[in-house]
Amino acid sequence: MSEHLERVLERLDETTDAALARLFTFLKIPSISTDPEHHPECRRAAAWVADDLNDIGFDARVRPTDGQPMVVAHDHSQPGKPHVLFYGHYDVQPPEPLELWETPPFEPRLADEEGHGQVIIARGAADDKGQLMTFLEACRAWKSVTGNLPVNVSVLLEGEEESGSPSLAPFLDANKDELTADLALVCDTGQTDAKTPAITTRLRGLADMEVIITGPNRDLHSGMFGGPAVNPIRVLTSILGQLHNDEGRVEIPGFYDDVAEISAEQRAQWAALDFDEAAFLGDIGLKSSAGEAGRSLLELIWSRPTAEMNGIIGGYTGPGTKTVIPSVASAKLTFRLVPDQDPDKILSAFKQWIEERLPADCSVAFKSRGGSPAVGFDLDGTEMQAARAALAAEWGRAPVMMGCGGSIPIVEAFKTTLGMESLLIGFGLDDDRIHSPNEKYNLTSFTKGARSWARVLAELAA
Amino acid sequence: MSEHLERVLERLDETTDAALARLFTFLKIPSISTDPEHHPECRRAAAWVADDLNDIGFDARVRPTDGQPMVVAHDHSQPGKPHVLFYGHYDVQPPEPLELWETPPFEPRLADEEGHGQVIIARGAADDKGQLMTFLEACRAWKSVTGNLPVNVSVLLEGEEESGSPSLAPFLDANKDELTADLALVCDTGQTDAKTPAITTRLRGLADMEVIITGPNRDLHSGMFGGPAVNPIRVLTSILGQLHNDEGRVEIPGFYDDVAEISAEQRAQWAALDFDEAAFLGDIGLKSSAGEAGRSLLELIWSRPTAEMNGIIGGYTGPGTKTVIPSVASAKLTFRLVPDQDPDKILSAFKQWIEERLPADCSVAFKSRGGSPAVGFDLDGTEMQAARAALAAEWGRAPVMMGCGGSIPIVEAFKTTLGMESLLIGFGLDDDRIHSPNEKYNLTSFTKGARSWARVLAELAA
Repeated sequence: MSEHLERVLERLDETTDAALARLFTFLKIPSISTDPEHHPECRRAAAWVADDLNDIGFDARVRPTDGQPMVVAHDHSQPGKPHVLFYGHYDVQPPEPLELWETPPFEPRLADEEGHGQVIIARGAADDKGQLMTFLEACRAWKSVTGNLPVNVSVLLEGEEESGSPSLAPFLDANKDELTADLALVCDTGQTDAKTPAITTRLRGLADMEVIITGPNRDLHSGMFGGPAVNPIRVLTSILGQLHNDEGRVEIPGFYDDVAEISAEQRAQWAALDFDEAAFLGDIGLKSSAGEAGRSLLELIWSRPTAEMNGIIGGYTGPGTKTVIPSVASAKLTFRLVPDQDPDKILSAFKQWIEERLPADCSVAFKSRGGSPAVGFDLDGTEMQAARAALAAEWGRAPVMMGCGGSIPIVEAFKTTLGMESLLIGFGLDDDRIHSPNEKYNLTSFTKGARSWARVLAELAA
Repeated sequence: MSEHLERVLERLDETTDAALARLFTFLKIPSISTDPEHHPECRRAAAWVADDLNDIGFDARVRPTDGQPMVVAHDHSQPGKPHVLFYGHYDVQPPEPLELWETPPFEPRLADEEGHGQVIIARGAADDKGQLMTFLEACRAWKSVTGNLPVNVSVLLEGEEESGSPSLAPFLDANKDELTADLALVCDTGQTDAKTPAITTRLRGLADMEVIITGPNRDLHSGMFGGPAVNPIRVLTSILGQLHNDEGRVEIPGFYDDVAEISAEQRAQWAALDFDEAAFLGDIGLKSSAGEAGRSLLELIWSRPTAEMNGIIGGYTGPGTKTVIPSVASAKLTFRLVPDQDPDKILSAFKQWIEERLPADCSVAFKSRGGSPAVGFDLDGTEMQAARAALAAEWGRAPVMMGCGGSIPIVEAFKTTLGMESLLIGFGLDDDRIHSPNEKYNLTSFTKGARSWARVLAELAA
C-alpha cells in the first residue's frame, strides 16, 4: 500500500465523528422529491451538498433543471490519469407511515442494533445520502492529506431518483461532453452480507409485450352462443398456459439461445454465500421455487431470463356473475433478459409463438414499448480488477460479483446516452429498511465504505 | 275438427282488424319497466290488459306488488277439465337508440317487409305484447263463439320481465294455491322459421364458479422476485388452459357422465331444419365452430353442456406496463348444463379438478351462487302430444322440438315454486329485432299464433 493511501485511511479513521456530523446535517433535510411541498427542501439539500463539495475542493455548482436541480462538481487535476464520474442522489423517499418510526425520520441518531453494532437511523441513511457521503468523505480525506485526488473526478448528484428521474435524460443529453468520463462509479447498491464487499456486475434487461386476442365481433350471451362461439379468454389461457413447461422453462423457441451459463467460479462463489433461500421465500409466503428446476434462487434472479405475466383481463370482472362470452381478452407480459439476449429478437419470437397457436377466427394485436438489453460487465477488465483488488484489501475477502434481478435506469442511461460503462459498488444491506420506517445504515457500512472508495480511487490511478 | 273449433277459427279470421286495433292500443303504452319515469305507463298497461281480460269474460284484477303490478285473471267454468296458467309480460325493453327507429317506437304500424309479408312494427310487437295477445284473442274467440273456454284458464301477466322480475318469486310464493295449475303455458319463445311451428322442449341449466388463486403473500417486484416466485396468473392460465381438449370437450372427469345423447329422430329433425350455420357464425364475426368437434351448431347450443370463462383478472391492467408479480388472480366461469346433469356434482368435480392441478405454495378459494338444472320436457307426455297435434293441424307440418341455449327463469320458477311443468309455444322469429330498434312481429305470427292457441286449448280439453 502506498504511503499516501495509508495516511488517507488513517485520516478517515481519525475524522469519523466529523464525517458523521456532516451526514447528520444532510439527513436532517427532508428532501422528498415526490412531494411538491418538499421541493424547497430538495433545493436546500442540493445547496448543502454543493457547498460541501466546494469545501472539499471541487468546483461544484447547483444546476437547474425543469424539476429538482442537479449538483455537478469537477476536480480534474491529474492529467493523464483516468476520469471517473461518480453518481448518487440527494433526494429521499417519503417517510410515511410516520407512526411506525421509533424516532422522527429526519432526526438522525446512532443506535445499537443486534447483529449490526451501531447503526445510523434516519430516512435516507442508506438510500442514498449515507452511501453518497462515503465517496465524498474518501475524496475529502485524499484532498486534505495530499492536496489532490488520485484520478480526475466528476460528481453528478440527482434530486429526482425517487420520483422517476424525469430530468435526468435531458440533462445528460444537454451536457454530454461535460459528463462523459472513462467510467461511472455508482453507489446505490448493496452487499450480500455485512462482512463481504460486493460489486454488482449483472443487471437483467426488460422487454414488454401486451397480447390482445379478439374472437367474436361483440360480447355474446353464453346461453345463445355458448358452445359454437370461440371464447378469447379460453384461447388466451390455452396459449399462455403453454408458455412454461413442467420444469419452469420458457417454451418460446430460441428463448435461451443467447443465454450463457455463468462460469463455474461464479456459480461456486454464489453457492458459498450465506443466502437463506427458505427465509427469502418465507418472507413472501412461499416454500419452494417456481423457477427453472435445478437452479438456486440467486442463480435464477441474477442470471436467468423470465417470461412473466404481469396482468390479465377479459370479460366480466365485477361482483357476481355475467353470462358473457367476451369479444376480447388480453394479457401484459414482461421478459427479464440476461446479457446477450436481444430484446427485439425475444419479442419477435414471442409474437410468432402466439400467432402459431392462434385458432381459427381469432385475431391478435400486440403492443410494446420495446425493451432494453441486460447489462453484464467484464469481470476481468482493468477497472473491474482494480475495484476487486481495492475491496479485497479493505474487507479481507474477495468481493462477491453480484447480480441484480432488476434494471438500474442510471446504468442504462450512462450506457446509451454517454456510452459509458459503470462500476456499481455499494455498502447497503438487505435489512437496511430502505423505503420503510426506521431506515438504517450500519456505521461500519459508512466507515468502511469511505475507506473502500479511498482504496478504489488509488487502484484506479495505478 | 270439432264444429266449435271450426267456428272459433273462422271468428278469429273475421276479427283480425279488431284484434290488431286492440294490439296497437296496447303497443302505444310505453311500459318500460326498467325506467322509473315510465312506471305510471306500466300501471296503465296493466290496467288496460286487465280491462281487456274482463271484456273477454275473465275475472281479472290488477294486483299490487312492491314493484310493477301483476295482472291475474281466471275463467274456471269447466269442472273436470284441465287447468292451465298462461304467462306473458306486458312490460317492454327501452327503445333506445331512438335515432335508429324508422318511425317512433310507440306508434305501431303495419309495413311490408321482404320475405315476411306484412309486419307489425313497434317496441313490444314481438316481446311480448304481440305474443301474449295471441292467447287472449284465442280466448276471446272461444268465449264469443261458445260462451266458454275449452279448459279452465288462469292468466298471469308480469310487468317486470325486462327488469329482472324482482317481484315474481314473492308473488308466486304468496299466491301458490291460486296460481298452481296442471300446466303452465308460456308464450315468450320463437320458431326456427316462419313456416314451421315449434315447441321449446329443452332449456340448458346454469351453474357458476369463481376461482381465486393466491400465490405470494403480496404483490412482488418482478425484477427482485421474478424466477423463483410463483405467479398466480401463470398458474391460472396453466390450469384453465387444460379445461378443454383439442376436440373442444371439457376435461373435468365425469362432466359428460349424465349427458344423454339426443334421439336419432330428434337429431334428424334438427338436421332437416333450414338453419344456416355460416350465417349464424358470420353474424358474430366467426367462420367455424369452437365447440365439440363433429356436432352441429344447433346440437351444441340446444343439447350440449359447456364450461365457459366469462371473466378473468389479475395483476396490472391499466395503461402501459407494471413489472408486478401479483398475489392473486381469478376467473369467473359458468357451466351450461343439459338435462340430468346435477349442478352441485358438476361444481364439485370442477373444484376438485382445480385443486388437483394446484402447484405448491398456491391456495385456491371458490365462490359460487350454485346452479339450476336444465329443463327437459317429456316429448311423449299427454299435454305435449296435444300441443304437437294442434300445431301440426294449424301449420300443416310437425312442430320442431326446439332447444334453448339459455334458461328461462319463469319456467324454473313455476317448477320450483309451484311444482308445475311448462309448455313453451311462441311464434317469434330470430329476425324480429327484439331489444333492438324497429322491433317487428310478422302479421302471420300474430294471426296464426291466435289460431294455434285456439287449437291447443281444444286439444288440451280432449
